[in-house]
Amino acid sequence: MSEMGKAGPVTVSPEAFLAMGREVLAKQPFSILMGAQLNALEPGRCELQLTIAEHLKQQNGFLHGGVVSYLADNALTYAGGTALSVPVVTSEYKINYVRPAVGDRLVARARAEYVGKSQAVCRCEVYAVTIHGEKLCAMAQGTIVPLPEAARPDIP
Amino acid sequence: MSEMGKAGPVTVSPEAFLAMGREVLAKQPFSILMGAQLNALEPGRCELQLTIAEHLKQQNGFLHGGVVSYLADNALTYAGGTALSVPVVTSEYKINYVRPAVGDRLVARARAEYVGKSQAVCRCEVYAVTIHGEKLCAMAQGTIVPLPEAARPDIP
Amino acid sequence: MSEMGKAGPVTVSPEAFLAMGREVLAKQPFSILMGAQLNALEPGRCELQLTIAEHLKQQNGFLHGGVVSYLADNALTYAGGTALSVPVVTSEYKINYVRPAVGDRLVARARAEYVGKSQAVCRCEVYAVTIHGEKLCAMAQGTIVPLPEAARPDIP
Amino acid sequence: MSEMGKAGPVTVSPEAFLAMGREVLAKQPFSILMGAQLNALEPGRCELQLTIAEHLKQQNGFLHGGVVSYLADNALTYAGGTALSVPVVTSEYKINYVRPAVGDRLVARARAEYVGKSQAVCRCEVYAVTIHGEKLCAMAQGTIVPLPEAARPDIP
Repeated sequence: MSEMGKAGPVTVSPEAFLAMGREVLAKQPFSILMGAQLNALEPGRCELQLTIAEHLKQQNGFLHGGVVSYLADNALTYAGGTALSVPVVTSEYKINYVRPAVGDRLVARARAEYVGKSQAVCRCEVYAVTIHGEKLCAMAQGTIVPLPEAARPDIP
Repeated sequence: MSEMGKAGPVTVSPEAFLAMGREVLAKQPFSILMGAQLNALEPGRCELQLTIAEHLKQQNGFLHGGVVSYLADNALTYAGGTALSVPVVTSEYKINYVRPAVGDRLVARARAEYVGKSQAVCRCEVYAVTIHGEKLCAMAQGTIVPLPEAARPDIP
Repeated sequence: MSEMGKAGPVTVSPEAFLAMGREVLAKQPFSILMGAQLNALEPGRCELQLTIAEHLKQQNGFLHGGVVSYLADNALTYAGGTALSVPVVTSEYKINYVRPAVGDRLVARARAEYVGKSQAVCRCEVYAVTIHGEKLCAMAQGTIVPLPEAARPDIP
Repeated sequence: MSEMGKAGPVTVSPEAFLAMGREVLAKQPFSILMGAQLNALEPGRCELQLTIAEHLKQQNGFLHGGVVSYLADNALTYAGGTALSVPVVTSEYKINYVRPAVGDRLVARARAEYVGKSQAVCRCEVYAVTIHGEKLCAMAQGTIVPLPEAARPDIP
């Protein structure tokens, strides 16, 4: 008789790991709407970008803060999720907007700075990019936690 | 000879105040994309909503956290801006996601809890609403500040 | 034969509940050093105070921000801990300082705004009090979570 | 005739810069009570430490979170203040506690990550240190702003 135990970790090539991350993004209708792309992904680190476009702006011609928050939050989640190796959800985060986002692309780089059993605390910087270089737009710090069992949300 | 001084505050009816707020929203392409609507607006308080729709979701069928953040951030900005009575920008905010947003509408209620010369510190709660009632989805606290002179961003 | 199962909740009078809270405070050397006193405690709500004194100040004659943070953090923890009914720890919090604390007493009032299975998200306001009244000094929002099993910290 | 204008910046040796920072600390009664020491200070960066002692603990034998917050807040303020080159105050900050602080010394390292005309956004890590090394206890991100003119607090 064979005994089936819990599967151990599977070795995945860096290319396959990034591909898996892109599959997740492709299943998020809102991320498709935002035009988000995953540039890089490794356990505990990611780079996410989107193209700055008219429909993402606010009344002063800058990218809407909500778009910057979206990219930071998604990047924090990828960093924490790949660090914890389980399905995760962002518990909370804080973001400072330091410059309006003006440029061609918005790029978010996040990494898990602390990884424990029940949480990953991650940081992220968001840049507005043009052919002339990058300018820091926002900085975030947030807490990523495993999704409760059976993907049930934490509802009393 | 006439002497022109700085104009004093103008009295605006509640309906006109709300209408002015809706005009600002109508000039934000991203807010139009999100389908955001301003339900209520008075100095220091606002209620903003949007319809939960497929294109705003993530891979588990819930509204994407970025949509919840967007609504909270915009609501904090309205509350702070109407309290400070000048053009403003969100300096920073923190948001806790407490439940996934599942329902028909997402509603954010924000108010300025502290109003000073150079900042308003505001709080916001975001609810997922169905015909059966409201469920709290997120809580935020953030700092709203006057836009630097001549609408120039704070860039060194 | 008797069957011993897990003990159900015990009914405690409001006075006893407050007394239990004061016992916890009395076991915290740092809280004794700060002179913190628990004025009120009920499930999910608390009021904590301390006397503003010279040794708690910074160079401008105001109470040191670290004292304000201490009181807010402790109050958030009491609110969350009594709401969750288990030993807890503060996972994280954010605090806005809105006025320097000048006065006779510092008072923090906190309450659990959301209570779930694995977290309580709490808010707190801190006031500087004189015989003339109260002035808001700080506002906080934080996440309180159950202490990991066996009081073991979350260390990988 | 001599012409007195606003003094330009003065060149200060690294040792003198650190000494100036220590003078500020020495004028903070609460910092003296905490036993805080400034190990390093340069524009935009600092290292602050204190000795973990019984009177700074809470009921489980760990350093009280309020002590960790105090050190992080003070370090953020030094980093932001030396970056902005004017008297400053912490506007707000967020802190994640990732491990209880157990050890001989608590060390906070902070740096200004963004420096603008009206704010510095700083980050800080706090470590519990023993002869065996350092363990990360907390991570913070906060906003440091110039003290309003004439050192008057921002009171409406």
